[in-house]
Amino acid sequence: MNKMITIAVDAMGGDNSPNKILDGIELHCKKSKNIFYRIFGDKNLIDPIILKKSINKDIFEIIHTNEKIKGEDSAFTAAKRGKNTSMWLAIESVKNKSSDIVISAGNTGALLVIAKLNLKMIENIDKPALSGLWPSKKGMSVVLDLGANIECSDKNLIDFSIMGSSLFKSLFPDENPKVALLNIGSEEVKGNEVIKETYKKLNQISNEDFEFKGFIEGNHIMDGESNVIVADGFTGNVALKTAEGTANFINSELKQSMSGSFFGKIGSLISMSSLKKFKKKLDPRLYNGAILLGLDSPVIKSHGGTDFIGFANSLTVCEKIVKNNLIDKIKNSIN
Amino acid sequence: MNKMITIAVDAMGGDNSPNKILDGIELHCKKSKNIFYRIFGDKNLIDPIILKKSINKDIFEIIHTNEKIKGEDSAFTAAKRGKNTSMWLAIESVKNKSSDIVISAGNTGALLVIAKLNLKMIENIDKPALSGLWPSKKGMSVVLDLGANIECSDKNLIDFSIMGSSLFKSLFPDENPKVALLNIGSEEVKGNEVIKETYKKLNQISNEDFEFKGFIEGNHIMDGESNVIVADGFTGNVALKTAEGTANFINSELKQSMSGSFFGKIGSLISMSSLKKFKKKLDPRLYNGAILLGLDSPVIKSHGGTDFIGFANSLTVCEKIVKNNLIDKIKNSIN
Repeated sequence: MNKMITIAVDAMGGDNSPNKILDGIELHCKKSKNIFYRIFGDKNLIDPIILKKSINKDIFEIIHTNEKIKGEDSAFTAAKRGKNTSMWLAIESVKNKSSDIVISAGNTGALLVIAKLNLKMIENIDKPALSGLWPSKKGMSVVLDLGANIECSDKNLIDFSIMGSSLFKSLFPDENPKVALLNIGSEEVKGNEVIKETYKKLNQISNEDFEFKGFIEGNHIMDGESNVIVADGFTGNVALKTAEGTANFINSELKQSMSGSFFGKIGSLISMSSLKKFKKKLDPRLYNGAILLGLDSPVIKSHGGTDFIGFANSLTVCEKIVKNNLIDKIKNSIN
Repeated sequence: MNKMITIAVDAMGGDNSPNKILDGIELHCKKSKNIFYRIFGDKNLIDPIILKKSINKDIFEIIHTNEKIKGEDSAFTAAKRGKNTSMWLAIESVKNKSSDIVISAGNTGALLVIAKLNLKMIENIDKPALSGLWPSKKGMSVVLDLGANIECSDKNLIDFSIMGSSLFKSLFPDENPKVALLNIGSEEVKGNEVIKETYKKLNQISNEDFEFKGFIEGNHIMDGESNVIVADGFTGNVALKTAEGTANFINSELKQSMSGSFFGKIGSLISMSSLKKFKKKLDPRLYNGAILLGLDSPVIKSHGGTDFIGFANSLTVCEKIVKNNLIDKIKNSIN
């Protein structure tokens, strides 16, 4: 029998919460067995919703709190006055080992700070990194850091390579992590000093945890030839947001041109089934869930704007991470 | 009568040259009057092609050279042994004022180095920057630096704001330049020290040349609310390449899903006219032509992989830049 996995869920973060969080749990528990949800939030709001759902009462527990971190709270405010919030209590629950993993769709800055305040770093790792999932021609890739660290040393980038590979291996146990460093050219001489030094060192490290593929340029991130893309948090965040913006722009231009003419409309109706397939494959909800790596417990950030399907996908990410022992993988690789 | 504009053209750079260069000139001279093309390259290759074209013999001159910069040449090699190449001679032609502007579709690194070796910087500008044209919901934006300077000071980024605005104003005389700094958040406290300092100073500068809109995140580059996007060369290059990669990825996924099913095929046939409009608007050839700013003569880099239509569009960029006195605009703004 599989071991029970306990997920600490902050029910109060992100748009349309706690509804979408509870809808997400309902969807997730239909597909997944042996999961226990520790739900943190306002019992008065949660109870009337969850009791109407087809969720077995044995697989969840509600831990009541009136307080929550707001989207507009600064990380400083959150750290100072957040102790009784659903986010803080959910993180505390992995700290004291009542839960295996914690997930929140709330304020990212607050989550990073509260997690760092409460959880220990994995030994020999200096900085935690935020990693995300990107679609690629060959499936899905991991990209990190997405903004937790604006400036990084070569040691940090090497740590990110190791942690990103462990994450990739946890999510896709049958595939081999192939690491590349995001740079502005693929030749050895390109880039800043930190990135050149990292390149040199990663080439020297012999390891069985990942294959180092060298530098990668932004236009090849989605090729899928490398599936763990490493950058400092500034660069990674710009790349992520630019890709999002480009995709949104193309989508809106496409929609506009399709709806402009009569034939365009007919065509788009007939094409609907193919476009649906296209949209389904690139549905951002499939890639929902940024993973904070480097702390001795896993912390997952769901996109605040996603819906219950996206949130349920993040719960699946949680499940895989615990099942495949991400934290142990990182600890083994780092040594 | 309009003043004659002389464009120095390196005919030997990029894929499929000199053919596409000469085809580009033929296309351009049909639409544009008062242009003289000084064409640098192998007369033995150029003559038989150009003599068959409907280009008036009075509007061009061929300056013969056997040598050319190759795509694989390092910038160092180009600087050391490039003196008799078509690229070098074309640049020399703006240096000694025989031409108003120079364009090449050849090796970017070599072009940057040879231009910097031959041309003077505009007074009070420390570093030249490479700027490009991006599609946006409201038309077209200027983004710089795209990779000429990996590390930048706040002074550099302020210079880029001024130069980018001058370029925008030269290309779109009826619009007002709105400058934004590419960052990982829109709040004042986000980003590295250089970018925060730049933000502060740009807010203090009172000027009539552009409006400063603050920080912009990657996902808003294409909104068109700001039309001059400023970043250091590392960040700008990653953003550009990531946007390219995302667009290519979506295109290939879209194509695949459209061709997968029978109905998809019919649909895409019927939608062809709308898709054509979509593709036309986003045709990368429309945005061809990176502009090296900061030197006392304008230097244009056409994409090496573009075709004659893309090259002709870059020639139009050349024309606008000279007609609207880009260099004078920069000189006036910087003081």
